[in-house]
Amino acid sequence: MSKPAIGMVGLGRMGANMARRLHLKGLDVTVYNRHAQKATDLAQETGMHAASTLEELVQKLPAPRVIWLMLPAGEATQSHIDQLLPLLSKEDILVNGANALYEDSMAQSAKVEAAGVHYIDAGVSGGVWGLKEGYALMVGGSQEAVARVTPFLKALAPGEDQGWLHCGPVGSGHFVKMVHNGIEYGMMQALAEGFAILQAKEEFHLDLANVAEMWRYGSVVRSWLLDLTADTLHKDQVLDDIAPVVADSGEGLWTAQAALAMKIPAPVITLALQMRWASQGKDDYAAKLLAMMRNQFGGHAVQKED
Amino acid sequence: MSKPAIGMVGLGRMGANMARRLHLKGLDVTVYNRHAQKATDLAQETGMHAASTLEELVQKLPAPRVIWLMLPAGEATQSHIDQLLPLLSKEDILVNGANALYEDSMAQSAKVEAAGVHYIDAGVSGGVWGLKEGYALMVGGSQEAVARVTPFLKALAPGEDQGWLHCGPVGSGHFVKMVHNGIEYGMMQALAEGFAILQAKEEFHLDLANVAEMWRYGSVVRSWLLDLTADTLHKDQVLDDIAPVVADSGEGLWTAQAALAMKIPAPVITLALQMRWASQGKDDYAAKLLAMMRNQFGGHAVQKED
Amino acid sequence: MSKPAIGMVGLGRMGANMARRLHLKGLDVTVYNRHAQKATDLAQETGMHAASTLEELVQKLPAPRVIWLMLPAGEATQSHIDQLLPLLSKEDILVNGANALYEDSMAQSAKVEAAGVHYIDAGVSGGVWGLKEGYALMVGGSQEAVARVTPFLKALAPGEDQGWLHCGPVGSGHFVKMVHNGIEYGMMQALAEGFAILQAKEEFHLDLANVAEMWRYGSVVRSWLLDLTADTLHKDQVLDDIAPVVADSGEGLWTAQAALAMKIPAPVITLALQMRWASQGKDDYAAKLLAMMRNQFGGHAVQKED
Amino acid sequence: MSKPAIGMVGLGRMGANMARRLHLKGLDVTVYNRHAQKATDLAQETGMHAASTLEELVQKLPAPRVIWLMLPAGEATQSHIDQLLPLLSKEDILVNGANALYEDSMAQSAKVEAAGVHYIDAGVSGGVWGLKEGYALMVGGSQEAVARVTPFLKALAPGEDQGWLHCGPVGSGHFVKMVHNGIEYGMMQALAEGFAILQAKEEFHLDLANVAEMWRYGSVVRSWLLDLTADTLHKDQVLDDIAPVVADSGEGLWTAQAALAMKIPAPVITLALQMRWASQGKDDYAAKLLAMMRNQFGGHAVQKED
Repeated sequence: MSKPAIGMVGLGRMGANMARRLHLKGLDVTVYNRHAQKATDLAQETGMHAASTLEELVQKLPAPRVIWLMLPAGEATQSHIDQLLPLLSKEDILVNGANALYEDSMAQSAKVEAAGVHYIDAGVSGGVWGLKEGYALMVGGSQEAVARVTPFLKALAPGEDQGWLHCGPVGSGHFVKMVHNGIEYGMMQALAEGFAILQAKEEFHLDLANVAEMWRYGSVVRSWLLDLTADTLHKDQVLDDIAPVVADSGEGLWTAQAALAMKIPAPVITLALQMRWASQGKDDYAAKLLAMMRNQFGGHAVQKED
Repeated sequence: MSKPAIGMVGLGRMGANMARRLHLKGLDVTVYNRHAQKATDLAQETGMHAASTLEELVQKLPAPRVIWLMLPAGEATQSHIDQLLPLLSKEDILVNGANALYEDSMAQSAKVEAAGVHYIDAGVSGGVWGLKEGYALMVGGSQEAVARVTPFLKALAPGEDQGWLHCGPVGSGHFVKMVHNGIEYGMMQALAEGFAILQAKEEFHLDLANVAEMWRYGSVVRSWLLDLTADTLHKDQVLDDIAPVVADSGEGLWTAQAALAMKIPAPVITLALQMRWASQGKDDYAAKLLAMMRNQFGGHAVQKED
Repeated sequence: MSKPAIGMVGLGRMGANMARRLHLKGLDVTVYNRHAQKATDLAQETGMHAASTLEELVQKLPAPRVIWLMLPAGEATQSHIDQLLPLLSKEDILVNGANALYEDSMAQSAKVEAAGVHYIDAGVSGGVWGLKEGYALMVGGSQEAVARVTPFLKALAPGEDQGWLHCGPVGSGHFVKMVHNGIEYGMMQALAEGFAILQAKEEFHLDLANVAEMWRYGSVVRSWLLDLTADTLHKDQVLDDIAPVVADSGEGLWTAQAALAMKIPAPVITLALQMRWASQGKDDYAAKLLAMMRNQFGGHAVQKED
Repeated sequence: MSKPAIGMVGLGRMGANMARRLHLKGLDVTVYNRHAQKATDLAQETGMHAASTLEELVQKLPAPRVIWLMLPAGEATQSHIDQLLPLLSKEDILVNGANALYEDSMAQSAKVEAAGVHYIDAGVSGGVWGLKEGYALMVGGSQEAVARVTPFLKALAPGEDQGWLHCGPVGSGHFVKMVHNGIEYGMMQALAEGFAILQAKEEFHLDLANVAEMWRYGSVVRSWLLDLTADTLHKDQVLDDIAPVVADSGEGLWTAQAALAMKIPAPVITLALQMRWASQGKDDYAAKLLAMMRNQFGGHAVQKED
């Protein structure tokens, strides 16, 4: 029996590594990238197949096909779906692995399913570590479609039966991934606050890297985020040349928005996001106005911008 | 019958203006300042009496005396009390009008009362506007002592029976003033957030000064802080040359600490304080660490300090 | 010259009192309510005109007409607009005074303006006190349309030139009103936290009504919300028979959502909303799970529901 | 060479299990408990030594002695120290393993060290799982004293060189443990909020136990707290008979207080604590007052207590 075949579209850091992991696990992977050279290089290096056009990709895959899109959410994903849909046949499956808003995925799915093609939304966690340790996969879609992609889920996940879940109908995969990232915002903020308190206690001359390392074993806060924190602190715990600016991608915001829309208090997740924005200077107008108010009622001096 | 006499010690912005208001209301005011010239100048300008030493102050005041200390909390106040106590007689009254921690005032009172001198803690609100509009006065002390200073409270307050209160025993005056300032932190933050939202809605080209001015009448948020906000926005609503740095004095912190000590949730007051600290860069280590964590797990770029 | 005429549609607490105020100020008011009796009664009591159908209302008003809708946002407002539009003529004006989401008002306006009828969104603040003290009015619409309703704005507002503002284009009125309510959430929470801290300080036996009353004069936190707080505390400061449940209407939520959508940190406004939700029990699942987690790692006892 | 000997005072859940682990690792353990039967039973069951008085304990231990106190912080610990000090000799070591406030430990240490006895503060994490998995140990004290207790630390910790740390001088052990628990509060709250959002999304019929289980592998939020959450959700994810009341012990509060005292923003940790208090009804007065304010300005109905 031939091994299950999959097409991977989008060979950024995530897509390329996921293709590698699928290939290493013995699956039949054909890769495609808008800049074809990337696909050719990866195929040459690893022995996967490469397709230089979407038409070629579709031709090279046995029907019914499984194509996994690992592209930026929004236009990039949508335009590839628009190009692929006319080339696909009934019962083919499109997996959207982007960090997309679950409501967008539900709307996108409706159009794809209308063309007789199955749609699966897959939230993928793992970052730069996924190739080696496996990816956590949160999948939404029909029983039938998810059953057909299960070999790929098992290969991508950290274990055959670990780290992947068919969460529910289309949308639920990206929803669960979104909440996962929301929790991550809160956990990261809690860790960062804790280490900031330790760092401020100058009289104890604490070695923060050693503290983090020690907490990795037996403590209540042991976690993968703590492991990474320990790594980072081992390299540098002074952080003098790092700017105090924390970027945010969409999913923390979406979690906060979903919680508001459902009237569920998520104060810590929301605040973790707001603190990131404050670090980006999005709080500046409020702060300037507060400084002026204090000046107005108390005659307190105001700092001028240099 | 002679008019009630009071000594005012400390002629900073608050003390000098309070002396003026007492004098304008027809009370008999003797002023003292560590730099005697300030007292002499004020007396010359207004017709009050000046004392160039604390001994002279005590001699010039009819017994039983009332002396109001309007000095920075802590050492400045304590050292003046230490100098005054040996000069005073039983039944004299010391009023501590500083922004002191109520627990410190209670401890201070115990020593003063042990010497037979009455102690009153007075929280004073009013800032640069108090001379004209009157000061809100929150007073703690015995019935007897407070009764004797009531003529001065009536003169300082916005109205004879408005804007001053004998709150309870010693400590309660500074406690109520502390909570007053805590509420102020929360209200200011709420206003600042609201105007920041308005300012960010560029498509509406809102005139924030006009919005603030309009809200002053008939709206639910009309308040003195809004009046000041309107004043400030009328002068400048772009705030381009103001640094986004909000200072804090002690009382917001004390309120947050008191709430913690009593296990009363005061999340908005506490957060308003924490946002001020974030504006001062006290959040920087946490932000740097968060940026490094993101880099560690996601390979996200980190901004370097210039 | 005849006095300006207006039709008021919707005679709930707000609409009826606004009609009264317009009438008392000498304007020509025709009232309509779905239950016609309410309109008839109000007209009989006050001498306004009543219309028992929307057709009659339109006929009774001189063209170009001004009709002010004071109905619940959403379907009630929309269905009245749908009924009115075919009856109206070019240059007539519809004012939507509901607490509507500004984006909905902008969409609604597009349809109304397409029919040649002007649309104004008016945010109205004032509650049960507006009849006597006047309403704060935040108005969005074209220069031309707003100029024509200005006589009514001047009559409704607390002063001819106070408490009303043409904020900007359609949508801006409801946007500014929304932010106003958001600020209100934050201010109320700050006040409530402060009084909760005072109340918890049992050793001082503070009279909270007296504290609130005193703060009304000369303090930094003096405000209309404090006035109301004083009123309420004068009646009852124990609050033993009041359930600790705080309802929320839409506008606090909309403000939090708008801030998120614009990436402006509004932590205090957002948290004030979340604390209301917590008071409504919307935090219960999280709390139950936390209790179980503590039990799981520490063997801590868990309370069972009765 | 004889094996290192230690006395364990206090045989609650923590102390008894720690004694067991030390004994299992081949160390020479003598146990004492105020109710002597507990010590006798444990000795009989395991083969450790038991002492029925503190005098006996001191006699049974070879000098210089190591005695580990595993008692409730505060009076219980202090009174045992007071009884032990006259019995001890110079160079003996007292280890305080309680969850004590680090500042109290520093004060306590000063007195102990004045008697020539060494003092070590040890923060111990591990709960009911420590016997099997080992305890995370955060230790403060002099180089000399810590070197002498290192065999016991290695035995108690999850690994010889894992999960224990000599943090710094006396106080630093309990300080680091305190911050550990503060971070734990924030992480737990983030997890609970996330699962509450998932639970509220009824249309997806998510199985929260499966989601938690899946996240344990390869996800960014994998952590010991998530492991426990998965355990708990596997048993019951409806939580209908659990009261939504989350208790708090001292260390979350101490962390929030330490952050305030050092002016370090720790908004998420602080808020996690405040949400626990809200779950305990400590927010009720504020909520009642807010309900009354809304009633006052908007005529909104107020719920009465049953």
